[in-house]
This record gives sequence, C-alpha cells and structure tokens, in this order.
Amino acid sequence: MNRVKKKAVILLSGGLDSATCLAIAKSQGYECYAMSFNYGQRHKAELLAAEVVANTLGVEAFKVIGIDMGGIGGSALTDADIAVPVDGASSGIPITYVPARNTVFLSLALGWAEVLDANDIFIGVNSVDYSGYPDCRPEFISAFEILANVATKKGVEEHSLSIKTPLIDLSKAEIIQRGVALGVDYALTVSCYQATDSGKACGKCESCRLRKEGFEAAGVMDPTQY
Amino acid sequence: MNRVKKKAVILLSGGLDSATCLAIAKSQGYECYAMSFNYGQRHKAELLAAEVVANTLGVEAFKVIGIDMGGIGGSALTDADIAVPVDGASSGIPITYVPARNTVFLSLALGWAEVLDANDIFIGVNSVDYSGYPDCRPEFISAFEILANVATKKGVEEHSLSIKTPLIDLSKAEIIQRGVALGVDYALTVSCYQATDSGKACGKCESCRLRKEGFEAAGVMDPTQY
Repeated sequence: MNRVKKKAVILLSGGLDSATCLAIAKSQGYECYAMSFNYGQRHKAELLAAEVVANTLGVEAFKVIGIDMGGIGGSALTDADIAVPVDGASSGIPITYVPARNTVFLSLALGWAEVLDANDIFIGVNSVDYSGYPDCRPEFISAFEILANVATKKGVEEHSLSIKTPLIDLSKAEIIQRGVALGVDYALTVSCYQATDSGKACGKCESCRLRKEGFEAAGVMDPTQY
Repeated sequence: MNRVKKKAVILLSGGLDSATCLAIAKSQGYECYAMSFNYGQRHKAELLAAEVVANTLGVEAFKVIGIDMGGIGGSALTDADIAVPVDGASSGIPITYVPARNTVFLSLALGWAEVLDANDIFIGVNSVDYSGYPDCRPEFISAFEILANVATKKGVEEHSLSIKTPLIDLSKAEIIQRGVALGVDYALTVSCYQATDSGKACGKCESCRLRKEGFEAAGVMDPTQY
C-alpha cells in the first residue's frame, strides 16, 4: 500500500478565497506547499496574512517568491501613480487588473510543482463574484493546464499536471460557508487592495465590497477590521 | 497612413540565439523592447552581455526583471549545489533545465506586451541544435500563444497576441550565418553556463559545445573568449 501523501502547490495570497482553497486542499488529503508572491503590491499586510494562514491551517512549506512586476507597471495594484477606484463597479476589465499576473504566478507554481514532483496546483479563482479579470476564467485555467503538460519535463513524461480550482463555480457567500465549515478563521485574512500595514481594510474598494457582501449573503459575522 | 511602428517584446539572454532574434525583429521593422531576467543564474556576465547587445543593436527600452527562481531550486543553473555537466551530451532532459523557465519568462513578457500594447513577443528558441528542454519545442510555443490570448485583456479583446520564434527551424550554423548577415557582433554575446564575471567561457559545457560546433559548421571565425 502506497502511504505517501499526494502533494499540491497552493497559491496563497492572504485573502479569503485562497485561504479557503488551502483548507479545501487539506480536506482532500493533500500535503500542501503554499506559495506567495512579493510582486510589488501596494502593501505587505497580505503577505503577513498569507504566512499566518499557512501556519494556522498547516502546510509542509511556505515560500514567498520575489518578482519585480512593478517594473512592468500598468496596474493600480503595482503602480503607486494609479489610484485604486473606490467609487463602485465599473464596466469592463478594471485598472486593478495586473497584466498577466495569474499566468506569472501559475508559471512559478508549475516550476515548484516540478521540483516537488507534485501533480496538482490549487488556485482560488472564481468566475461568479469576481472582478472581471480575464485570468480568473475557466478558459484561462484550461489553457494553462494544457500548457503545463507540454512546458515541463514532468508534464511531457507523465501528462499528470492538473490545475485545481475548487472555488470556480461558487458565489462569495458559498465560499465563506465552505471555509467556515472547514474551520478557516477569516479574521486572519486580508482582501483589501489598499490595507494598512497592520491589515486594516478600507471598506470601499471593489475587493472590500465583494467580501462584505459575501459575509452578509452567507449570514456569517464579518470579522474584517475596517 | 499609419506611421506608428509595430512594437515587439524581445526576450534577450545575452546569448547567441536571442541576439540573433533581436536582429531579425529589427530587420522586420519592429520597435523593440528587450527584456532580461535576473533569476538566480550562476553568473551575471550574461546580463551584462544582454545590455551591451541591446544597446549595440538598438532598442526602445531594455528592462531587467528580478525573479527569485533560485528559491524553487531543481536546476544546475540556479542551484550552486548541483554541478554543470561537462562530460558530453547525456540522454533525456538535462540537469541544466530550469523548471518552467520559458513559461515564467514568456508570462512576464506577456505582461509587458500588454502594458506596451505590443502584439508580438520574440523568443529565440530552437528545436534543432538544442539541449532537449521541453519548453523550447513548437508544441510549447503554440500552447503559450493560445494561453496568451485568453490570459490578458488585450488577448481577449483583440486576439492579436503572437509568439514569434524565427530561429525555431534553424541549425546553430544557420542562426550564426543569419546573424552575421544582419551585423550581429557575436563577440558581445555569452552562451556559457558557467562563464566568469568578465564573460570568459568554459568551452566545455553543453552550451559552449553547441556554440563552438555552430561556428565551425557555419565557416565563421569563433570570436568567443575561452
């Protein structure tokens, strides 16, 4: 009998979705390797939150990879000269979209998966209550999974790489209910695009609004510090 | 009449292939944006070479993006504890393969292309005289191009992103002949996996061997400093 646990790389942002994603992977019996990115985002509160979430839920390893994405610019999340909108949802793809961010993150997760000999990569993307980012859609995930299996030694030899998106069809309220059932402490997570260094949320940005509405719809007390 | 030049992002490593790739893009009338990566490789000579090549051939901008790929490990090129082989070609995918490297590099090029509103990304991969890396094959490039057009705002709206591989079917000798015709000074390029900081090549690693044989087969004097 093979008693070796299956391994997975989990992309962890410090936010609500990825914390739930990690809890789901753990509940499915995976040995979890959590990965966060220091990519020039506006605040470090989410990286601190990611580490606390990883330690609290329990992971085999937690790694923060530095990437100089601010050098590319083009987003309110990495360019201090572009303001984060706080005036309600706009149509189209918003200015908080970071060009190719999930492609970059999944690529690095793929590299680590290959080194670890892990078949599965978990990412907490969601196509229901999301912000209209192209790289959160099922089409994107499918295309990346195909790429992963031609891009790597492991993929070419075993055709075994899979991108897992357990939140893809859930509403924010359903994600929260799922996480609460699995024991996720959402007080540890930070979703705000412009949180203070101690993790206080603005309560006004798109990400804060989606989160707040999610707790209301789920009928769960919102533990966010505003 | 639209007199705006078409823009391209060119991945530039400081080696022979990518220098030729940049020269080809320039000869096709592109306004070129060159991109290099400081990803924990063994030596910095190739980054210095990339900058000199970019300045000599002429680019609109040259950007070096830092990525902490050494944190992932698993390759002789980023892990000082793994030796670079100097004892002839081995079968299979070699230890100098960096997990998911071209996927990571193309992802960041894709992000910059989106910010620049560039449709084309040039990468000097080659499927003839190459080292057996999975992410240098045409299947990989096709899969990445499909991904690019679902991963980004620009791709979703215009379906215009293209990954250009002008060297894909050329032998090393043909690449060199092409570059010489376009005025590339190969003395400025560094291909060696373990060059000294001043750019002296070892003459023994796989990359040095392929390069040396290429100059011989092309009938061109080898300007490499060994």
